Amino acid sequence: MAPPFYAVISGVGSGTGAALARRFAQSYAVVLLSRKPSSYESIVADIKASGGTAIGITADATDPAATDAAFAQIAKELPGSKLAAAVYNGGSGMARKPFLELTLENLDVSLQGAAKGLFIFAQKTLPLLVDAVDSSPNPPSLLVTGATASVRGSAFFSTFAAGKFAQRALTQSLAREYGPKGVHVALAVIDGGIDTPWGKGTVFNNGVEDGKISPDAIAESYWHLHSQHRSAFTQELDIRPYVEKF
Amino acid sequence: MAPPFYAVISGVGSGTGAALARRFAQSYAVVLLSRKPSSYESIVADIKASGGTAIGITADATDPAATDAAFAQIAKELPGSKLAAAVYNGGSGMARKPFLELTLENLDVSLQGAAKGLFIFAQKTLPLLVDAVDSSPNPPSLLVTGATASVRGSAFFSTFAAGKFAQRALTQSLAREYGPKGVHVALAVIDGGIDTPWGKGTVFNNGVEDGKISPDAIAESYWHLHSQHRSAFTQELDIRPYVEKF
Amino acid sequence: MAPPFYAVISGVGSGTGAALARRFAQSYAVVLLSRKPSSYESIVADIKASGGTAIGITADATDPAATDAAFAQIAKELPGSKLAAAVYNGGSGMARKPFLELTLENLDVSLQGAAKGLFIFAQKTLPLLVDAVDSSPNPPSLLVTGATASVRGSAFFSTFAAGKFAQRALTQSLAREYGPKGVHVALAVIDGGIDTPWGKGTVFNNGVEDGKISPDAIAESYWHLHSQHRSAFTQELDIRPYVEKF
Amino acid sequence: MAPPFYAVISGVGSGTGAALARRFAQSYAVVLLSRKPSSYESIVADIKASGGTAIGITADATDPAATDAAFAQIAKELPGSKLAAAVYNGGSGMARKPFLELTLENLDVSLQGAAKGLFIFAQKTLPLLVDAVDSSPNPPSLLVTGATASVRGSAFFSTFAAGKFAQRALTQSLAREYGPKGVHVALAVIDGGIDTPWGKGTVFNNGVEDGKISPDAIAESYWHLHSQHRSAFTQELDIRPYVEKF
Repeated sequence: MAPPFYAVISGVGSGTGAALARRFAQSYAVVLLSRKPSSYESIVADIKASGGTAIGITADATDPAATDAAFAQIAKELPGSKLAAAVYNGGSGMARKPFLELTLENLDVSLQGAAKGLFIFAQKTLPLLVDAVDSSPNPPSLLVTGATASVRGSAFFSTFAAGKFAQRALTQSLAREYGPKGVHVALAVIDGGIDTPWGKGTVFNNGVEDGKISPDAIAESYWHLHSQHRSAFTQELDIRPYVEKF
Repeated sequence: MAPPFYAVISGVGSGTGAALARRFAQSYAVVLLSRKPSSYESIVADIKASGGTAIGITADATDPAATDAAFAQIAKELPGSKLAAAVYNGGSGMARKPFLELTLENLDVSLQGAAKGLFIFAQKTLPLLVDAVDSSPNPPSLLVTGATASVRGSAFFSTFAAGKFAQRALTQSLAREYGPKGVHVALAVIDGGIDTPWGKGTVFNNGVEDGKISPDAIAESYWHLHSQHRSAFTQELDIRPYVEKF
Repeated sequence: MAPPFYAVISGVGSGTGAALARRFAQSYAVVLLSRKPSSYESIVADIKASGGTAIGITADATDPAATDAAFAQIAKELPGSKLAAAVYNGGSGMARKPFLELTLENLDVSLQGAAKGLFIFAQKTLPLLVDAVDSSPNPPSLLVTGATASVRGSAFFSTFAAGKFAQRALTQSLAREYGPKGVHVALAVIDGGIDTPWGKGTVFNNGVEDGKISPDAIAESYWHLHSQHRSAFTQELDIRPYVEKF
Repeated sequence: MAPPFYAVISGVGSGTGAALARRFAQSYAVVLLSRKPSSYESIVADIKASGGTAIGITADATDPAATDAAFAQIAKELPGSKLAAAVYNGGSGMARKPFLELTLENLDVSLQGAAKGLFIFAQKTLPLLVDAVDSSPNPPSLLVTGATASVRGSAFFSTFAAGKFAQRALTQSLAREYGPKGVHVALAVIDGGIDTPWGKGTVFNNGVEDGKISPDAIAESYWHLHSQHRSAFTQELDIRPYVEKF
């Protein structure tokens, strides 16, 4: 029998998405969406080995048909299970370049990954989240991973910021529309480098200890958002290393 | 002989764009870009009748080739003239609907009109503006028309806000990159209904006098932004009727 | 023997402060500061009855000498105990009036309660928090209770907003100065009515269930802030009921 | 006979205040308030020499009685003249120090200069501005000089930011209350070093040309704010040199 509730995480690699999957798997079945099976296979295996329920589905978040298919598959694999948490953690191609070297494709990748993907994901998940309001142990939640560029347009990050700003607009709008329905929509503004396996070589904050953000620490804050009582929703919070300049 | 400097205004109808054209025509040749000749013909005629120089060009701002063609035509019609001011006043389809009734097309129209159009326009005009830094009577300027939705995502305006947030991200990024080159990039956040000929029937602020924003007043503020000394650039200002709630 | 760590909460009545005291008492000795013994006596008794350590001290937060005396008393009553968390939850007199009916005293009460009190409290606690960085189980934290008026000046709330804005300025500045030292400084922007014993008669959000913020829910978010890993500090978060307009 | 309208500028030295006085003297009688006669004497003389009307009054802006006396003197010296513009340009003691080296007096100086002084000035001028709504050639205006620290609390500027944040709260609140009455309340966030006579030795932006803000340029933007049509009020704008990092 399927667990009564599941969480779906869109955008899973070995960093934040993996940590989120492990954290939410402590309470729910988790569904991992990613473009490539290699991004989720080992995490799915780990969670299963720990006694949890995990499903990996290959899907491009910016493709509506692929997203439809993914949720059809979820309904089949987790019959009767309700959606308690939907996390949009999709990438959007951080191009760091002078404006005249950026192309329309850079802009498009950013807008698609940050805004269109979230739009598709939200249209799919919000009805499911609303449907879980009366039964979910925690208020059903749509949680989104933002960045410094969600709140600040910097020289050389114009297209990246365009996508992340657009994404923030969506989360604000959805929070205002879906809060009163009992769904918790929140944005986490991740302001700093994340300590991912593939980013070991990248130095942040002069390499000082804990100068990169721990993905597990991010996951704890997402879980906290999800577990907030409906009388006390947070719509937006920032997350950064203690040594980060801001 | 062509006037030494010109302003180009993208997105001209009978409201803000027309007022901007008339205002900047007091000092420069003006080029009006719009999707339909009917949007600029009478304004061009008016400006010419007043002794000014005005050119109307039909072009879709979200089409790079059309924009290229427009600037090629400008170079031909105003040989030797330099670009002193570029105003992006493009529309982006304000859809007011519950989120689940909005479509990917609504999102696309918003992102294209507010962000992609500005991106194309900025890539075309920034090199021309930089080229005018040493000679322009006022610091060459890229001025952009924002809205309440540039700074606030509201329920029912999610896609519109997505585009306007993205646009704001671009202006912030470009201001930070091009300010030090001497180009003034600014966003005007228009927070209220505008008193346009076609919107006479729409009531704002209970129909109180001056409860809608005068397009000429907006144009004065754009001209002020353009005329600011380079030691004192404004990056962002809001504009709203005295009676507007905010 | 005194517990190894304590939390101090300035501004304790029967609402948020009481909930914070109970929450932090699960891990630490707690010290409750308030102007009147009646504000903390029953909470101190409750915590002791549950097996916790609690001390109530009568002190006016805006009086430096009283604050000095309070911390001298703490050092005596909890010898060797280190400060893990300092919460500033002081009131600042929310006067709701047209501007011309407000007095300099209204302004003063607000500035004193929100800014001067925090200044005094922070000067006293930050050295103690720094001293606990190497040993505290969680990053030593200075947590501050803000309000809607911390981020928005409304008609009729001018003096209240003045104090809360000033308070926010202090928390931002201190976060930037003390983050790199390992101390977590954060502001919680409480945006809504709180469900306090004394406010039972006040209706918020049409009296809908959970339309007032649960103090215990606030306390959970403060505890989450306190428990965040130093690689992932939140500087500011908002808290509001799901039905709150914002 | 007194001119029909006057502007009053609180906080006049040889920098911004002097430039504001000269600019507003082009249209109105101007009253200069300062703590010391030496701060306004030469400006008053200059304006008179140019054919304008100028009055200097010695008054401490943070002293209600002194402010009362100043306005009584204005009523006597400019009988029948109405107040068209009130500018609060008061200093608030920018102390740049680590938090533990700052004193309660630093905090007090900042809160008094930025918030209390504005409160007193606004209570005095708003009724006079309301009284001029029907006759003033431009919407009567209360204009306030902010700083980077109005919108950002930085390490080492905690007390300065506290005052400037509080000041911003007042302007936002007053704009929302007095806009509908026809009075324009606006804040200019001055983000950079100002090119004052006494600050010639202080280098900003590596001494690049126009790397300090021209006081005359600031004054032009204040005049623009004052001249905005009531359908198009700006509540807040930033002003910074083209080379300023932000």
